[in-house]
Amino acid sequence: MVKTNQFMELALDEARAAGERGEVPIGAVLVLDGAVIARAGNRTRELNDVTAHAEVLAIRMACEALDQERLTGADLYVTLEPCTMCAAAISFARIRRLYYGAEDPKGGGVDNGVRFYGQPTCHHAPEVYSGLNEVRAAEMLRGFFQGKRD
Amino acid sequence: MVKTNQFMELALDEARAAGERGEVPIGAVLVLDGAVIARAGNRTRELNDVTAHAEVLAIRMACEALDQERLTGADLYVTLEPCTMCAAAISFARIRRLYYGAEDPKGGGVDNGVRFYGQPTCHHAPEVYSGLNEVRAAEMLRGFFQGKRD
Repeated sequence: MVKTNQFMELALDEARAAGERGEVPIGAVLVLDGAVIARAGNRTRELNDVTAHAEVLAIRMACEALDQERLTGADLYVTLEPCTMCAAAISFARIRRLYYGAEDPKGGGVDNGVRFYGQPTCHHAPEVYSGLNEVRAAEMLRGFFQGKRD
Repeated sequence: MVKTNQFMELALDEARAAGERGEVPIGAVLVLDGAVIARAGNRTRELNDVTAHAEVLAIRMACEALDQERLTGADLYVTLEPCTMCAAAISFARIRRLYYGAEDPKGGGVDNGVRFYGQPTCHHAPEVYSGLNEVRAAEMLRGFFQGKRD
């Protein structure tokens, strides 16, 4: 197991913990000035909240902790390509860089689907880096859905 | 003043109240089986939460009140065309019908921008009805931004 990036490792830890709670195993970590300011895994089932994706929870936690509405200069590490909702929330929060693991052709909104950051209705686009630990991120999701089918 | 629809009137009331709190004046009302199950206005500033749009707040409130993750059969009335984030959240919540007031060419994600409900990455699309009380909804927004510029 190569540890390419400490923050993506933390995001994978959050994804694993989410899976153990019976949630879709996706994790997210927010970093500002080299320090983790929020980390979260999916909690849509626990919270009965379709918006409680890892990215949205991390953004809400960081904004609450910092007492500010925007996260200018912050970088987000997430194990799966953000969906359309999260892609827009990331833009609204003014996140600087987005690092994600596996691509999501069925539900992604960054490099698939609506490709939000290239749209004229997107008023801030983060720099995007994809494919970090994508194999492990994807395997975790595959294992989860396989387990549900069995 | 023509009152075309009682639920859109409530959404306009929520929008007005949001404006009075210094928030962008947008309001949303969720209706299930003829009864209001949630109503909210924008609270992004108050809550330091870029995801606290009226639609997202109403969805979260209704899911919490009903103790369920989805709102199958519910209808959403909102004064402005939902943004990309909210359009996706509405889809995730399995909302049946979306009624909105004014169009939003700069930030909308339903009939402008990403037109999410026509995308292959959208797995549930509500029926959409637009233009309800659009003049009053748009005037409220114009007045708000005019006031901020002055």
